[in-house]
Amino acid sequence: MRAVVRRNKRLVCDEIADLKPAEGQVLVKTLACGICGSDLHALHHMEHMIELGRRAGAGDNGFDPGADTVFGHEFCAEIVDLGPGSSKLLKPGARVVSVPATLTSSGMELLGFSNRLPGGFAEQMLLTEALLLEVPNGLATEHAALTEPFAVGFHAVAKARMDAGSVALVVGCGPVGLAVIAALKAQGHGPIIAADFSPRRRAAAEKLGADVVIDPKEQSPHDRWEALGVPRSRSAQQMVRMMGGRFARPIVFECVGAPGVLQALIEAAPAGSQIVVAGVCMETDRIEPCIAITKEIELTFVFGYSAEEFAATLRNIAEGVIDVSGLVTARVGLEGVAEAFEALADPEAQVKILVEPGL
Amino acid sequence: MRAVVRRNKRLVCDEIADLKPAEGQVLVKTLACGICGSDLHALHHMEHMIELGRRAGAGDNGFDPGADTVFGHEFCAEIVDLGPGSSKLLKPGARVVSVPATLTSSGMELLGFSNRLPGGFAEQMLLTEALLLEVPNGLATEHAALTEPFAVGFHAVAKARMDAGSVALVVGCGPVGLAVIAALKAQGHGPIIAADFSPRRRAAAEKLGADVVIDPKEQSPHDRWEALGVPRSRSAQQMVRMMGGRFARPIVFECVGAPGVLQALIEAAPAGSQIVVAGVCMETDRIEPCIAITKEIELTFVFGYSAEEFAATLRNIAEGVIDVSGLVTARVGLEGVAEAFEALADPEAQVKILVEPGL
Repeated sequence: MRAVVRRNKRLVCDEIADLKPAEGQVLVKTLACGICGSDLHALHHMEHMIELGRRAGAGDNGFDPGADTVFGHEFCAEIVDLGPGSSKLLKPGARVVSVPATLTSSGMELLGFSNRLPGGFAEQMLLTEALLLEVPNGLATEHAALTEPFAVGFHAVAKARMDAGSVALVVGCGPVGLAVIAALKAQGHGPIIAADFSPRRRAAAEKLGADVVIDPKEQSPHDRWEALGVPRSRSAQQMVRMMGGRFARPIVFECVGAPGVLQALIEAAPAGSQIVVAGVCMETDRIEPCIAITKEIELTFVFGYSAEEFAATLRNIAEGVIDVSGLVTARVGLEGVAEAFEALADPEAQVKILVEPGL
Repeated sequence: MRAVVRRNKRLVCDEIADLKPAEGQVLVKTLACGICGSDLHALHHMEHMIELGRRAGAGDNGFDPGADTVFGHEFCAEIVDLGPGSSKLLKPGARVVSVPATLTSSGMELLGFSNRLPGGFAEQMLLTEALLLEVPNGLATEHAALTEPFAVGFHAVAKARMDAGSVALVVGCGPVGLAVIAALKAQGHGPIIAADFSPRRRAAAEKLGADVVIDPKEQSPHDRWEALGVPRSRSAQQMVRMMGGRFARPIVFECVGAPGVLQALIEAAPAGSQIVVAGVCMETDRIEPCIAITKEIELTFVFGYSAEEFAATLRNIAEGVIDVSGLVTARVGLEGVAEAFEALADPEAQVKILVEPGL
């Protein structure tokens, strides 16, 4: 079958071996699969990612960054065949999504970052039957394929300890920031301040439910805390408490993932802020612990989502609680993937590009 | 009156102006006042501390690091005189402790870091009547003076979100680490692992209630997690959950406050750990956010304590819930303070030195 293969730090279209479902597995046809920021990074820096993963004790499952890899972990697919001993609750032809992991005898294989199993930039994949979720009737394939990136936002919000009336600031409105905004809105939180340099992304943030949308070139989003009821300095907070007042816990979502952003937020966010770090900074970063201590900042680093959060996100999209229309800004076939990776370097050009192997 | 004055980055004994209590204030005689690690740092690096405080939005209250300062914020004192309009609930002769802050018309003046009011390395101080706590009858002055540093531990533990059965690792058994161990024990948490290179400090940790005491030169304290029921890697944790098992949230208290410790803990602590950062690192530090993200680490930076936490700590010491005997390893008069600052550079030589202006 055809697939986009990462080989020598380049993406090439090639024939790869056909797949055969083992017990518990299903063979699916990839209908659509989003390109993620982590794919862009992994194309050039896979060795560094593996090294960081090893230091994180994540276990690389024998992954060899020098060997062929087929990316793609944000997919919607159609069942083609079922392995032996299948429960057959879902039949061939059913459209499904799944957390991007396939159970094998040596553990969970992460689809999209594996030498053994291809991810969604291939015509077919092997999934685990027990992890499949059927796409509700009527939900467009391109919207179902957004379940994975939006589940990331659901999880980040679940890790934030929001009060009723908590003010949330979302810094960076790329796919991660947009998913956070959608999850905040879906869970009834607000007000939501969103900041991004890109007009296109600010417009998407507004559409998904941000209450205040800010261009950091024009003004600091942190200028809004007081007007939304959160004193910024510890002494101003003490004065409010002294007078019997209260204010909600300030929550900041870091959705940029670049060096320096964390320290900028530690300095600019209100005292007592919880900073939920959802943007993945792959480089060494510098912080001033003394400032974080003086302000009693909390840095909550978050990653992934649970199967329940993934399923809840699919429901939210299917029921229109999260309106993902308009976020897919381009579709490409397998031959167009390499070019699409380049196009995504410009945040103004694209929000989400879907790969459709059938195109 | 006599005081130890910080002047030109040196400590000198000198005469300073006598004090007169304003409305709401009381004049006290300093009986004993501990030397804190922050005093040692401030002697040489006050300008940098002020700069970090300014960036933290803490407000310096007009503090001038070039002007005379009298340190000392861990004190027990005796009431000498009461200002006009006093409630007179406590009479001259009563022994008291207080959070080291005195209310003035421009806000709270931090005792020990002020140009306007002397801290505890002076014969007398001005305190705020409404903040005084009487030392319970029978509690030794030297033990009452330890309320402040032990309140720091109480607050750090309150900020940790401990489960029943949470395993706590305390890294560094200087005054901050010891206070954390005592607070964990007082609140019924455990098991407690404590790690320090100093035999003297390890002995103190054991006496205050640490269950496992480790010399990091001999072995990593992180080797103990599994034996105490906490799987370290995310994949091992997933396997436990898959089999229907549970494990308590791992909590690490960073009580060293030196560059590099935070990243070492991010790498070595179990996935999902909450790292409560109580050690004050005054230098820029480097972290690898990607590792913290992959492991879903939480960094909770903590500072100070509330008036309630301070009062609860005094009760714990007075009632013997926290046994502070043996922690004061030397006593000096005002003339001995400069030398005591130097002695504290060696963790093996001293744990806590008290300044007693009457000596």
